[in-house]
Amino acid sequence: MAIVSVPVEKSYRLLNIGATTLVSAKAEGIENVMAVAWSCALDYGALSKVTTVLDKQAFTRGLVEKSGLFAIQIPVANQAELVLKLGTTSRHTDPHKLDGVEIFYQDGFDIPLVKGCAGWILCELIPSEDNQQNHDLFIGKVIAAYADDRVFKDNHWIFDQAPNELRTLHYVAGGQFYLIGEGVEAE
Amino acid sequence: MAIVSVPVEKSYRLLNIGATTLVSAKAEGIENVMAVAWSCALDYGALSKVTTVLDKQAFTRGLVEKSGLFAIQIPVANQAELVLKLGTTSRHTDPHKLDGVEIFYQDGFDIPLVKGCAGWILCELIPSEDNQQNHDLFIGKVIAAYADDRVFKDNHWIFDQAPNELRTLHYVAGGQFYLIGEGVEAE
Repeated sequence: MAIVSVPVEKSYRLLNIGATTLVSAKAEGIENVMAVAWSCALDYGALSKVTTVLDKQAFTRGLVEKSGLFAIQIPVANQAELVLKLGTTSRHTDPHKLDGVEIFYQDGFDIPLVKGCAGWILCELIPSEDNQQNHDLFIGKVIAAYADDRVFKDNHWIFDQAPNELRTLHYVAGGQFYLIGEGVEAE
Repeated sequence: MAIVSVPVEKSYRLLNIGATTLVSAKAEGIENVMAVAWSCALDYGALSKVTTVLDKQAFTRGLVEKSGLFAIQIPVANQAELVLKLGTTSRHTDPHKLDGVEIFYQDGFDIPLVKGCAGWILCELIPSEDNQQNHDLFIGKVIAAYADDRVFKDNHWIFDQAPNELRTLHYVAGGQFYLIGEGVEAE
């Protein structure tokens, strides 16, 4: 496998299928990652933007507010337990939350990324006091994107040709997910 | 099958899995429906909210702005061609766009709903000039929700027990969708 660059213009394709995401950030040398089911594309093209929802109690939220940077990444089936853990523990109460989580960085971007995901979208916060305070809603401008070329190629997901454990996770509740399924073409 | 009420508090569950949606609205007696891949939950509980992205060229957007009401519904596999058509034609240029689309109403709500979907979320617009003008982003307060009890029961999706043609659609690009797939439990 290789991690390949995805054009910023096409980064919305990574989010289009509505998979559950992990949101990561770093400030003052401290990294964190949380699970977020509510991340969404907001625009495509040169002005590609995303939304994500970060609760006021989330440790990661503070890191985003301080650094103005975050990443949305798309975990896969064999990370289901990791995703659940990252969504149910907080670095506020568990300083070792990230123990066992493999973090890496892409050249030129000081944003922690989680190894083993299918896609990564690196963002610069577009600050909005009203959205952040009243809705816990954070808007990001996409500055770079990457994907695992076993499941995303030529700007399209290619799950039909990929191993099952690389399918994206779609959260329901109580530890229950659905994997992305079979492809269909409409005319 | 029966269309059953979903508590507003739990309506986010319908959106959690990130399926492609249809957004519908009505103003001055004129109805419209458009396909929107970018609809997302924003809050749960008594203050359940949603986001959706409506381009300035979308006819439906004008109806939402006029009426302050809209519905987000979740179409299924056997509606894939309908979804593609509703996402690639505009009522601006095709006054007959809705020909063949079966619309129904729920008692007490003057919001057009598309028959055959798996879930429906009825919303009141929370106006935000900044979000609507600068991001095409619309926020709605959930006022009612419904689901087809063959695929959503006791506030959970139950795709494993349902026919394949009732699986949700997750849009990639160019008429290509993935259906929601198999369930997994994490601990």
